[in-house]
Amino acid sequence: MKNSAQEKFVYNAWYIAAWPSELEDQPLARTILDEKIVLFRDKSGKVAALEDRCCHRAAPLSFGKVMTTGIQCGYHGMVFDSAGICIDNPGAGTDSKQYTVRSFPIVEQQNFIWIWMGDNSKADENKIIEYPHHEMSDDWSFEFSHYHIAANYIFMMDNLMDLTHLAYVHTSTIGGNPEDHAAASMEVTTTETGVKYMRWMLNSQPPPTFVAAAGFKGKVDRWSNFEYVAPSSVLQRNGALDVGKGAVDNQEQEGGISIRLFHHVTPETATSCHYFWSSAARGVVRDSNAGKKFQDDIAAAFLEDKAMVEAQQSIVSAQPHRELLSRTHDKAVALERKALHKMLACE
Amino acid sequence: MKNSAQEKFVYNAWYIAAWPSELEDQPLARTILDEKIVLFRDKSGKVAALEDRCCHRAAPLSFGKVMTTGIQCGYHGMVFDSAGICIDNPGAGTDSKQYTVRSFPIVEQQNFIWIWMGDNSKADENKIIEYPHHEMSDDWSFEFSHYHIAANYIFMMDNLMDLTHLAYVHTSTIGGNPEDHAAASMEVTTTETGVKYMRWMLNSQPPPTFVAAAGFKGKVDRWSNFEYVAPSSVLQRNGALDVGKGAVDNQEQEGGISIRLFHHVTPETATSCHYFWSSAARGVVRDSNAGKKFQDDIAAAFLEDKAMVEAQQSIVSAQPHRELLSRTHDKAVALERKALHKMLACE
Amino acid sequence: MKNSAQEKFVYNAWYIAAWPSELEDQPLARTILDEKIVLFRDKSGKVAALEDRCCHRAAPLSFGKVMTTGIQCGYHGMVFDSAGICIDNPGAGTDSKQYTVRSFPIVEQQNFIWIWMGDNSKADENKIIEYPHHEMSDDWSFEFSHYHIAANYIFMMDNLMDLTHLAYVHTSTIGGNPEDHAAASMEVTTTETGVKYMRWMLNSQPPPTFVAAAGFKGKVDRWSNFEYVAPSSVLQRNGALDVGKGAVDNQEQEGGISIRLFHHVTPETATSCHYFWSSAARGVVRDSNAGKKFQDDIAAAFLEDKAMVEAQQSIVSAQPHRELLSRTHDKAVALERKALHKMLACE
Repeated sequence: MKNSAQEKFVYNAWYIAAWPSELEDQPLARTILDEKIVLFRDKSGKVAALEDRCCHRAAPLSFGKVMTTGIQCGYHGMVFDSAGICIDNPGAGTDSKQYTVRSFPIVEQQNFIWIWMGDNSKADENKIIEYPHHEMSDDWSFEFSHYHIAANYIFMMDNLMDLTHLAYVHTSTIGGNPEDHAAASMEVTTTETGVKYMRWMLNSQPPPTFVAAAGFKGKVDRWSNFEYVAPSSVLQRNGALDVGKGAVDNQEQEGGISIRLFHHVTPETATSCHYFWSSAARGVVRDSNAGKKFQDDIAAAFLEDKAMVEAQQSIVSAQPHRELLSRTHDKAVALERKALHKMLACE
Repeated sequence: MKNSAQEKFVYNAWYIAAWPSELEDQPLARTILDEKIVLFRDKSGKVAALEDRCCHRAAPLSFGKVMTTGIQCGYHGMVFDSAGICIDNPGAGTDSKQYTVRSFPIVEQQNFIWIWMGDNSKADENKIIEYPHHEMSDDWSFEFSHYHIAANYIFMMDNLMDLTHLAYVHTSTIGGNPEDHAAASMEVTTTETGVKYMRWMLNSQPPPTFVAAAGFKGKVDRWSNFEYVAPSSVLQRNGALDVGKGAVDNQEQEGGISIRLFHHVTPETATSCHYFWSSAARGVVRDSNAGKKFQDDIAAAFLEDKAMVEAQQSIVSAQPHRELLSRTHDKAVALERKALHKMLACE
Repeated sequence: MKNSAQEKFVYNAWYIAAWPSELEDQPLARTILDEKIVLFRDKSGKVAALEDRCCHRAAPLSFGKVMTTGIQCGYHGMVFDSAGICIDNPGAGTDSKQYTVRSFPIVEQQNFIWIWMGDNSKADENKIIEYPHHEMSDDWSFEFSHYHIAANYIFMMDNLMDLTHLAYVHTSTIGGNPEDHAAASMEVTTTETGVKYMRWMLNSQPPPTFVAAAGFKGKVDRWSNFEYVAPSSVLQRNGALDVGKGAVDNQEQEGGISIRLFHHVTPETATSCHYFWSSAARGVVRDSNAGKKFQDDIAAAFLEDKAMVEAQQSIVSAQPHRELLSRTHDKAVALERKALHKMLACE
C-alpha cells in the first residue's frame, strides 16, 4: 500500500474551509490544497474565498479589511468582491475590472462552510454531505472543533477506517479492552462513494468515557457504523446499550448512549491538514458534568490521534519511498484507498 | 513587472554595513549579499570587514577577539589584519602570510559605515551619497535605526516610490486621507542615477503624526520630494505648512514641519535585508515630548512597512514565478526598476 | 584538507548508542548515521535496537511500550522482539512472523551500550574499545555525559587532535598559557587503528582547573597522551606534576593530577552528532568540592568545544565546497583523517 505522501490531491470535491464562527469581523488566511486562500464574510453577510494575493503587488488580502461588499487590500486599497473582481481601485479611474484575483465557490449550509478547489463548472452543491446535527433540538448535545494536524490527510482517514487502534491509542478514553477489539465482528460494504462498515463488540467492556457519560454498570453491546465518503469525510454512528436490551435489532431505543460524528479532513499541504470534527451525542445531558466530560474526552481522544498520525508522518517523511503493509484488519482501509484512487482517476 | 525574488544583486555599489554604534568592543557578524562578513573596529580605531571564516578551519572570526590591529580567531589564535592578512600564527613561524581571508573596502563617513562588495578596483569613494544630518546643529532632531526585514530589498524601494500606500498602511501615523493621497499631484523625473518625484497634497488633512508634532489646526499644503539612487538608497525631503503660507514657492520657511530621511536597504539574502534609516526633522523640539513622539511615530510607521513587505515576500516566495502588475501610481516604481536594471546590465 | 561535510560515514564500526542510564522504563528514540532507531531495555533486562518504524503503518515504535520481551507498537499493538520479529499481532492469527523490522546488533559492556550499523556479519565484539573506569574503585572520581552537537562528528575528532585550541577556546578552564601551548613538544605516532601523540608542556603554568583541583602552587610538567581510534574514539591520558618530580619518567606517581578521558562521537546526521564523554580523575577527592569543581570544569570546557564546532559547522554548511587549510600543528589531525579514509576505503 502506498504511504500517504505518495498520494495526490483530489481537486474536484467539496472540502470544509472553516467553521462559521471563524469568520466574524476579520479575514481568515488558510492554506487549502497548497493554495493560500483568504476567507471572509463581508458586511452584507456573504462568505467568500479568494486567493490570498492581491494581483497588484502580491500583498496578502488577509492583511486587509472586510468591506460592505468584498475585501480591501491593506497595501494600496484595491477592493475585490466575492467573485475576485476589483470594484475599487483608488484614484486609478475606470480600468479597474482588468484586475482580478481567483475566487473559489463557497457554500454555507448546516453550519459548515464548504469550498470547491477544482474546476468551477463541476461544482455541484447537491454533492455536499448532509449532517443536520448542528440544527437539531437539544436531545443531542454537540461540540465541534478544528485541529491543525502535521500529517497527510489520508492518515486521518486510515485511522478512522481501522478501529483496532482504539485499544492502544485511546486506552484511557474511548478505547476498551484490546481482546474485545481484536475479536469484534466487522461487516464491510462498498458504496458508490466509498466504503462503510458495521462493527459489533457484543458483551464487551465499555470504555472509560462511556461509563462516565452513561453510567453503565456492566458489559454492553457496542456498535460502530462508519461510512467513508471519498475523498475525506467519515460519518460515524455508534453507541452502546446494556447487554440484553436487543441492540442488534434496535440501536435507537432509550437508555445507553448514541453518538453521531462527522469527521472531515481538508488537505493543507502534502504533509499537513485541517481536521474538522463535530460530535453529537444522545444519552448524556447537554449541560451536565457527564455531558461536558463526554465531549472533553472526545476532544482529548482526537488529540491522541493527532499525536499518532503526526509521528507516523515524521517517519514517512524521512523515507518517502517506503510503502506500508496491511493486516487482516485493514480491509476497510484498503477499500477506502480504492475509492480515493477511483476519484483521482477521474481528474 | 518582475517580482523582487526574480532580481539579482548589484555588487559594484556602496552599501551601508552598520551604524558606528554597532561596532564597539565586539566583532559583529552580518550577512551582506549572501556573504557572511565580520565587521570590527580594532583597538587603533580602524573599521574593517573580512569574510567571517578563518582560512584555517573555517571557524567564524566573529567568535574571536578584537586586537590592536586586526582580529584574532577564537579557535587557534591566528590574527588577521584589516586587509585579511595573517599577522600572527601562534607557534607556526614565518610562513603566516600565505594565510589570508577576503577583505572588503570600508569607508566610515558622516556616521555611516559603507562597504563595497564588488570588484575592489571599482570602489570609488566619491560615489558615496552625502547625508550631513548626523553632524548638524540641533535645529534638526534626528533618530536612526536598523531593522532586519524578511523580504527582498527591492520591495522596500518599491514601497517608498509609491506613496499611495500611506493611506492604508499608515492610517494611524503618517498616513492621511485616502482621497487626498489618490488625488496628489506627482511630477516624476528621471535622474542620472535613478528617479525622483515631487508630490503635492495641497489643502489636505495633515496626518496624526504631523498634528501631534507641529500643532497644525487646519489643513496644510504637504509635499514629498523623493529621490531614488540605485541600487538601494532613497533620499526624502518632505513636510507641511499651513495653507496660505506659500509652501509651493518656499518650503524652507519658519513654521510647519520639515523632514529629511535617508533610507538605505542592504540586501542580506534574496529574501531578507537590512533596513537602515535616519530621520531628521525641523519644527519639532529635539528633547520635547512632541519631538520624541514624532520620532517614535516614524519608527512605528516603518515597522508597519516591515510587516507589509514581509507579508508580500511570503506570498511571492510561495509562487516565485508569478509577476506583479502596475497601476497608474506606479510610474516612479517602474523608473526605479529601470535604473536598477541599467546598473545590473553594467555588471 | 576536506571539510567534514565532504566525508562519508563509516558503517562497519561500533558506536556508542546510549548510556545505560538513558534506558530505564521508556523506549529512547535516537538518530544514528541518519537512521531513526528505537533503543529499549525490555523487562527481561535485554537492550535492543530496532529501526524506529513499525512495518505495518510506519508508526514510530518509540511511541510504544516496553514489554517482557520486545516492544509493542502504540498504534495497533504489534509486538517486536529484539531481533525485530513480530511476536504478537493482535487478532491476526498465525502469519505474524512475515512482519519484521530491521534490528541492529547491541553490546552492553563496561557501562556502555554499543551499536553496529553496518553489515551484521562483520560485527566483531572483540573490536570494542576497553575503558574500565566506570567499574573501578573510588580512587578515580568520574563523570559522564551526552551532548548533542550540531556539527559533523569529524570536527570533534579534529578538535581533540590539535590541542593548540586550548589556549583560546578554554582560557578560563583547562586552557593555559598560549605560548606554553604553542611551544609544547609533540611526538606523533601512527598506530594500526589510528594515531597517537605524546605532548609535553614542561615547566608550564597549570590552567585554572588544575590549580583549583590539585592545589598546584607553582609551575608543572604537564603531559597529554591522546590516541585516536578510527572512526570516532579518542582515549586521553593526561595530567600534571610539580616541576622536579620526574614526570617524564613516571607519570603515575602520587601527588599532582592524573586524568583518563574517553571521548566518543556517534554521527547523527552529516551535520550533527552525539558526543559521549566519560572523565575519570585521580588526585581530586570524589565527593569533595575540588572534585566536583574539576568535573564541572570539564563539562563546561566541552560545552566551549561544542559552541566552537557548531559555529564552524554553520560556516562550512554555508559554503560546503570550500576546503580547509592545515598548520604545522595539524600533523595528528592529518594522520587521523588518513586513518579514517583507510577505514572508508574498506567499505
